[in-house]
Amino acid sequence: MDQKIVNYLNEHKDLHLEELFEFLAIPSISAIPDHKEDVKKAANWTAEALHKIGLENVNVYSTKGHPVVYGEWMKAEGKPTVLIYGHYDVQPVDPLELWDSPPFEAEIRDEKIFARGASDDKGQTFMHIKAIEAILKTTGTLPLNVKFCIEGEEEIGSPNLPSFVEENKELLSSDVIVISDTSMLERGKPAICYGLRGLCGLQIDVKGPNSDLHSGLYGGAVQNPIHALVEIVNSFHNSQGEITVEGFYDRVEEITNNEREAFKAVLDDENLLKQLGLNELYGEKDFNTIERLFVRPTLEVNGIYGGFQGDGIKTVIPSKASAKITCRLVPNQDPNEIVELIQKHIEERIPKGVEVSISLFDKGYPFVTPFDHPAIQAAGRAYEEVYKVPTAYIRGGGSIPIVATFDQILKTPVVLMGFGLPTENFHAPNEHFHVENYEKGMETICHYWYELEKSL
Amino acid sequence: MDQKIVNYLNEHKDLHLEELFEFLAIPSISAIPDHKEDVKKAANWTAEALHKIGLENVNVYSTKGHPVVYGEWMKAEGKPTVLIYGHYDVQPVDPLELWDSPPFEAEIRDEKIFARGASDDKGQTFMHIKAIEAILKTTGTLPLNVKFCIEGEEEIGSPNLPSFVEENKELLSSDVIVISDTSMLERGKPAICYGLRGLCGLQIDVKGPNSDLHSGLYGGAVQNPIHALVEIVNSFHNSQGEITVEGFYDRVEEITNNEREAFKAVLDDENLLKQLGLNELYGEKDFNTIERLFVRPTLEVNGIYGGFQGDGIKTVIPSKASAKITCRLVPNQDPNEIVELIQKHIEERIPKGVEVSISLFDKGYPFVTPFDHPAIQAAGRAYEEVYKVPTAYIRGGGSIPIVATFDQILKTPVVLMGFGLPTENFHAPNEHFHVENYEKGMETICHYWYELEKSL
Repeated sequence: MDQKIVNYLNEHKDLHLEELFEFLAIPSISAIPDHKEDVKKAANWTAEALHKIGLENVNVYSTKGHPVVYGEWMKAEGKPTVLIYGHYDVQPVDPLELWDSPPFEAEIRDEKIFARGASDDKGQTFMHIKAIEAILKTTGTLPLNVKFCIEGEEEIGSPNLPSFVEENKELLSSDVIVISDTSMLERGKPAICYGLRGLCGLQIDVKGPNSDLHSGLYGGAVQNPIHALVEIVNSFHNSQGEITVEGFYDRVEEITNNEREAFKAVLDDENLLKQLGLNELYGEKDFNTIERLFVRPTLEVNGIYGGFQGDGIKTVIPSKASAKITCRLVPNQDPNEIVELIQKHIEERIPKGVEVSISLFDKGYPFVTPFDHPAIQAAGRAYEEVYKVPTAYIRGGGSIPIVATFDQILKTPVVLMGFGLPTENFHAPNEHFHVENYEKGMETICHYWYELEKSL
Repeated sequence: MDQKIVNYLNEHKDLHLEELFEFLAIPSISAIPDHKEDVKKAANWTAEALHKIGLENVNVYSTKGHPVVYGEWMKAEGKPTVLIYGHYDVQPVDPLELWDSPPFEAEIRDEKIFARGASDDKGQTFMHIKAIEAILKTTGTLPLNVKFCIEGEEEIGSPNLPSFVEENKELLSSDVIVISDTSMLERGKPAICYGLRGLCGLQIDVKGPNSDLHSGLYGGAVQNPIHALVEIVNSFHNSQGEITVEGFYDRVEEITNNEREAFKAVLDDENLLKQLGLNELYGEKDFNTIERLFVRPTLEVNGIYGGFQGDGIKTVIPSKASAKITCRLVPNQDPNEIVELIQKHIEERIPKGVEVSISLFDKGYPFVTPFDHPAIQAAGRAYEEVYKVPTAYIRGGGSIPIVATFDQILKTPVVLMGFGLPTENFHAPNEHFHVENYEKGMETICHYWYELEKSL
């Protein structure tokens, strides 16, 4: 790979950061309807960025939800084609008071870019755009054909992307799909993620009396919706950290001893404890931390609420109480089946004196690709050229539902090439992205296109 | 009793309602620090109202919290003295969107006064002021001596009243204390409440990782503070609705068969179900509804919260989760002891991987007076003269912590003479007060002062 490409990135560093900060300033929170226009603005910003670097057929495709941005460069005749997927939407920012700087006013502190979306996933999407820019501007061509597909609903489970992909199979066809939305192991330790957990979730709404009641006048004689909710929620796990929903683990793929052995090198419990400010870790018995994260499914309550939340006391029995629950799924669990099992579990346990309703969230299938696939090995070599250390091959605890969709609809191998760090507060206050990986990442991506051209 | 008194009340009906609406317009929410000035305004309004009807030594006494308003009429030489207690503070109003009319803009619909504080307790306090006005204006004197003690912290557990009472024993000395802050049985069925449940409470704060975490990246490997909280909260009751905190029931006074028998007439489960929009009632086994409300203690979660509460999903493991809990206590439970038992119960059950902290709320002792006391019987006769039906003698599920304080510090019998109805949404949206009981109540109070003078 020509050194000019790296020089170009260095020379344009300030300008590129300025552009990235502009992108990060758009509060494109896909989960909050009030931000619909901001999400649209981020889509248009992305399209303009693709257009500016010389891509063709740039288009903002409407969907039933937020739009999908497409652009391509198809002039490398006879060469492989890569489809780059990313997302321009971001997570909500509450609790806002825990941010040290405003989430949509990016700033660099301690060599980290602080902003919502800095790492997940505007920052990493932007890196792909600038890598293509650097190669095109310095060499006038690309070693392979490139397509970008950047969506705006990843943080809400990509509800409209499957039908978009289904309807645009030809447009999106490629030899390999590359996604940068995952993490390295830690600083200086790059990793290729060859598997992701799936996702399903539901909300439980418990309804009791038709109005909040005075706990003195009615307490003891009616079911308290909070008590009922807590009884249901507490029934999901046993005291060993295992999920007690019948059939939940039935289809879970056993891991091989080789895989178990390989995982041992990956995570350091002591570091994790320190990083999270905890005295002890906790999880399903008979598995260690990395196994719990990579290959075991979970059921987590992401939110619970009912009754008075202000300072002091309000002696009330609330009319209703709710909990939001998501599961992380592993091969070969089926999100539709898991949701049914949970619904059945709840329905068999509805406490007396309340009504319970369940609403479902979007789902994503778990995903795995063999780590000896040439596109994955080429990615590993690209990392090694820049980071000068061996690449780790890991599985990810999070979910990118669209990965399984690509897998199933386009039948194309997916390479997850992440530059985030697990400490970078994705989905939490003070999300950030290390400048070091932002810069090395762009260089790695450039190397990858040349490596990939040689491998496929 | 002179008919002129009743005529006076009728003639001044509109003017009195106007004054009451002015009182109800002051958002004197004692629990919310931002309303401190409003609470003060309500105190001054009360003092002015006492002064206007001809009371003497009217004073707004400062405390460490909200002030106490005092006023007296002591010219009935050789006659008994009654101390009237009430409170001018009100409950918070959230959720505001469930109110059909603004909580601090009183209006009459369906012969009911709708406003926060309409029944609890501004309305009932105001009735006492106007009853004294009516007697004084029409007869020029009172049948007995009267002292008013109206406080502003009842809805937050009266933290400063005990020391005020302790320091002003002489000022507050009386032969009987009368409080109108309880309910009748139902429309047309007056009741004297001769016992009240006590109160104690605490907040449980569960702290996990130092920041909200992405449930995909960390889910399964760390304790979720919501799960830990739910495990603790669920341990407070068994599946029979009984409280499982060791020692909780140890001092609970057994009820006599006579008392059980008398209760049978009081409450109609079918009506209660209809009123609350429920299909079934629920509570401690081996007790019926009225026993659960009158003579059995409770442990209720008044609020629970942690994680994401917005629309849709946010795949987060929250850093913390909290629950607010209060107990209703019956004779001879001691709130200090009960709080200690609950703390011990929690401390023995702290789940792995989280820290739990407990903070205490204010406490109130349970209270009972013999229902054959002459001051209580006189109150029963006063009701009967106006309502033309037998008075029921009941015990109340709610707590007025100050009742036990009066009992303990002043050693004076307390008569609870309520004019509210259990359906009037105290502490909830759309609190209201029936005009019928507002009017009959003032007449009943006037009768009571004459009956009391004859009895003591």
